[in-house]
Amino acid sequence: MDEFDIIARLFAPLAQAEPGAFGLGDDAAVLTPTAGMDLVLTKDAIVEGIHFFADDPPEAIAAKLLRVNLSDLAAKGARPRAYMLAAAFPAQADEAWVTRFATGIAADQKRFGGTLIGGDTVSTPGPGFFSLTAIGELPTGTMIRRKGARAGDLVCVSGTIGDAALYVAHRLAGAAVADVALLEDRYRLPQPRLALGQALKGKAHACCDISDGLIADLGHLCEQSALGAVIEWARVPLSAAAQASLDAGPALLETILAGGDDYELVFALAPDADLAALAAITPVTVIGRFEAGQGVRVIDAGGHDVALRRTGWRHGVGAS
Amino acid sequence: MDEFDIIARLFAPLAQAEPGAFGLGDDAAVLTPTAGMDLVLTKDAIVEGIHFFADDPPEAIAAKLLRVNLSDLAAKGARPRAYMLAAAFPAQADEAWVTRFATGIAADQKRFGGTLIGGDTVSTPGPGFFSLTAIGELPTGTMIRRKGARAGDLVCVSGTIGDAALYVAHRLAGAAVADVALLEDRYRLPQPRLALGQALKGKAHACCDISDGLIADLGHLCEQSALGAVIEWARVPLSAAAQASLDAGPALLETILAGGDDYELVFALAPDADLAALAAITPVTVIGRFEAGQGVRVIDAGGHDVALRRTGWRHGVGAS
Repeated sequence: MDEFDIIARLFAPLAQAEPGAFGLGDDAAVLTPTAGMDLVLTKDAIVEGIHFFADDPPEAIAAKLLRVNLSDLAAKGARPRAYMLAAAFPAQADEAWVTRFATGIAADQKRFGGTLIGGDTVSTPGPGFFSLTAIGELPTGTMIRRKGARAGDLVCVSGTIGDAALYVAHRLAGAAVADVALLEDRYRLPQPRLALGQALKGKAHACCDISDGLIADLGHLCEQSALGAVIEWARVPLSAAAQASLDAGPALLETILAGGDDYELVFALAPDADLAALAAITPVTVIGRFEAGQGVRVIDAGGHDVALRRTGWRHGVGAS
Repeated sequence: MDEFDIIARLFAPLAQAEPGAFGLGDDAAVLTPTAGMDLVLTKDAIVEGIHFFADDPPEAIAAKLLRVNLSDLAAKGARPRAYMLAAAFPAQADEAWVTRFATGIAADQKRFGGTLIGGDTVSTPGPGFFSLTAIGELPTGTMIRRKGARAGDLVCVSGTIGDAALYVAHRLAGAAVADVALLEDRYRLPQPRLALGQALKGKAHACCDISDGLIADLGHLCEQSALGAVIEWARVPLSAAAQASLDAGPALLETILAGGDDYELVFALAPDADLAALAAITPVTVIGRFEAGQGVRVIDAGGHDVALRRTGWRHGVGAS
């Protein structure tokens, strides 16, 4: 299948809603900024064999690519406006595969918002490689930073933690886990918390999404805010599958807390914040507090420190 | 070398000029648009073994990555403001290699403008892969399109054509060429014609950069403008090295006209346009005219059609 055909037939239809994309028929796209709005930009890449498995469904690979980027916009409180895609399809990608990939990204564009405005399709002699730049908007000056947490703030997380990492541990290291299908789904199809992120504007003092692992990403908030944090591991929200896995294999605690790929939000709220209003959008759990000092401490129900050997994934870093 | 270290030590210093990059320390960057300006966005990727050779100097690989994107901004008349980088360094890239890569992109950022505002550093089991999103600005509504050429307009090109393609033909197919060092330099270090592109705003009726080959990219202007074009091959500007190569091997004409990787501009000007003012910025040559019809015809000095088997490279397509 010719690369011009791929673009014209599969991707140009995704560009219709943004006139400045010119149907992907120009050298570049043009965006006229919306008055009173800032643009928020993020760029994450995913590589076959590193960030996705070669046998993952192409729809899911496309969806994950878009969603890991939308998750960054969510953490900043931005609304998706546009995105650009660079795709090097893997060797096994025939026309049907590429069509399924395009179908997956089309469905997610419709679900979450944002319009394809450009990109590049290239050949590669190596594994599949996809890079996406997501562009969001929010009212000028309202972006939620990693910096800004205050001592005494609540450490909050959305959704449940550890599902995707348990799937990877099962798949790569044979870890015994419960309900593989659910964990696999959480690995393949993260949920960008866009509505929650927009509701956090003006409320959260700091926020980021959890891609490298809860401990590592909470560590980023601490570092940027010049604080430490303490979390009680028993309060970390787990899915039934993760809870059953942990009950049967207590050593999986580390995988859950440090494994990554959650794409949930971790954020700082004042102790008197209205949690119920946020929880009406997406489940939110208080798991600890920010405190003076540095680094993230994990304690058990008795208040004793829990030692972790590993504190985070280092595969996909940068401004991610 | 740890990926966090790479970012902190080599790339964060490149982000200093844009406060919204937060020293690459947040999930995303924020840009407050300049009043009265549109943003122009482009994204091109380069792959080891496809778009660059594994033994190319890392400084040159970085420079080429930035320049092929800046060339798109140049063609649209935009001024570089910012860029985002996704990097999967190749297996042979040790700390010295990555440092040289960062040095190369730093030098070009200084030379051409634009600030690094974010990105992603990932592992890959395959060849080196780099994707860059370049963001430019221009006064609202002034972007030069591929569409807009008029019948009777002059077909103009900047610089010289075919040098990079001759180097590739020499390197991959053993073509006999003159002055390999000059051709290699043209392949490795394209010159984004930013000053010319900005001067073309309000003058050129249509413009794009030449990445896929003169014939193919002029064909894009024709297609988008619903016109044809005729060019006289003897008027196509050649470097001394390309001219000597062609004199010795007339079959190289096709490589020159269709080979690509020129990163010169091809554009449409009214017959009475002030060419001297443009040529004072960058050499500009009239090589033909737009005409009713479709497709690109090449004629010799006697006005006879020249048949070409190949009309363009199809490696790096899309909104490129």
